[in-house]
Amino acid sequence: MITDKDYIEWQISYRDPNGRLIEFGECLDKALNNDTNLKMEIKRVVEEYRNVDTFDKKFTIQRIEDNRYYNEFKLINELTPILRLDGLTDNYYIDIILKPKQRAVGYQAMVFLYIPCEKALPLEDGQKLIGRKAYQNEKVKVFLNSDHILGLLKSFLLASDTHRKDILNILRYLNVNV
Amino acid sequence: MITDKDYIEWQISYRDPNGRLIEFGECLDKALNNDTNLKMEIKRVVEEYRNVDTFDKKFTIQRIEDNRYYNEFKLINELTPILRLDGLTDNYYIDIILKPKQRAVGYQAMVFLYIPCEKALPLEDGQKLIGRKAYQNEKVKVFLNSDHILGLLKSFLLASDTHRKDILNILRYLNVNV
Repeated sequence: MITDKDYIEWQISYRDPNGRLIEFGECLDKALNNDTNLKMEIKRVVEEYRNVDTFDKKFTIQRIEDNRYYNEFKLINELTPILRLDGLTDNYYIDIILKPKQRAVGYQAMVFLYIPCEKALPLEDGQKLIGRKAYQNEKVKVFLNSDHILGLLKSFLLASDTHRKDILNILRYLNVNV
Repeated sequence: MITDKDYIEWQISYRDPNGRLIEFGECLDKALNNDTNLKMEIKRVVEEYRNVDTFDKKFTIQRIEDNRYYNEFKLINELTPILRLDGLTDNYYIDIILKPKQRAVGYQAMVFLYIPCEKALPLEDGQKLIGRKAYQNEKVKVFLNSDHILGLLKSFLLASDTHRKDILNILRYLNVNV
């Protein structure tokens, strides 16, 4: 049962495999066309974050052994760093999480947007999400304002060099002079 | 380039979706037919582990905040417990790792077998693995002796109630009276 304490987790991306803008990329495009102040705020955020050491360089996954055992097994604790940006409008928050790469050596930084379930608009039958279970493959509508967009911008600029370069290229493509 | 410090990571299972014995299940079947002492050793391990609290009940993933910030982002450390059985023949080792369930709430315990690359036998062209890169989708032959099999047995009996029940059922199916 979904309660008002539950969140939707959205591993948000910005381009599809063909290079087309999707999700955050699409949001940036639409928001820049509708909000004349946004361009200036985006430039300010870019100036603030473009030279900061990225998360994947500054932090690492660590393993800690302290000689404890459980039966014949040695206990190891794996410490994964997470950077959280909270205090966003409507209690949205963003996590940047370091994960081992799949099918490769090294780490990748992933950006997750968390949206309170009570702020999502169900599409299927208009019934509120809270107080029921989600339907299989249910889709909902969520709203991103400029506060969320600037938060996601900070997150991708901070996450890794790859994300930073991609986002700066998208901004230039959308005629933001960065 | 693969070195003699590298390991093959095998997330090992025991049944396919149709219930047929595969991987560890198949190993148990074959080893029981070839090693007359194994049945007794298996029974001994089962008696030792069948009533121990399982890993997923005894341990949990924790999050630790200590009020540190990186730029505007709060730093959170996620602590994931891992149980490791090492000291196995040929430097094989086994990890039981707790991971969040995909598309569901809660945790699942997964068993990984680690095999030194220098102990694996390449199939493609007989060229040693060490000193070259792996080919795409390359398959190798690995050897499991009774020490590895008993280690995997301990791991699945300890990992979770579900794994424990599955493994006990497989043993009964293979005519081991447990």
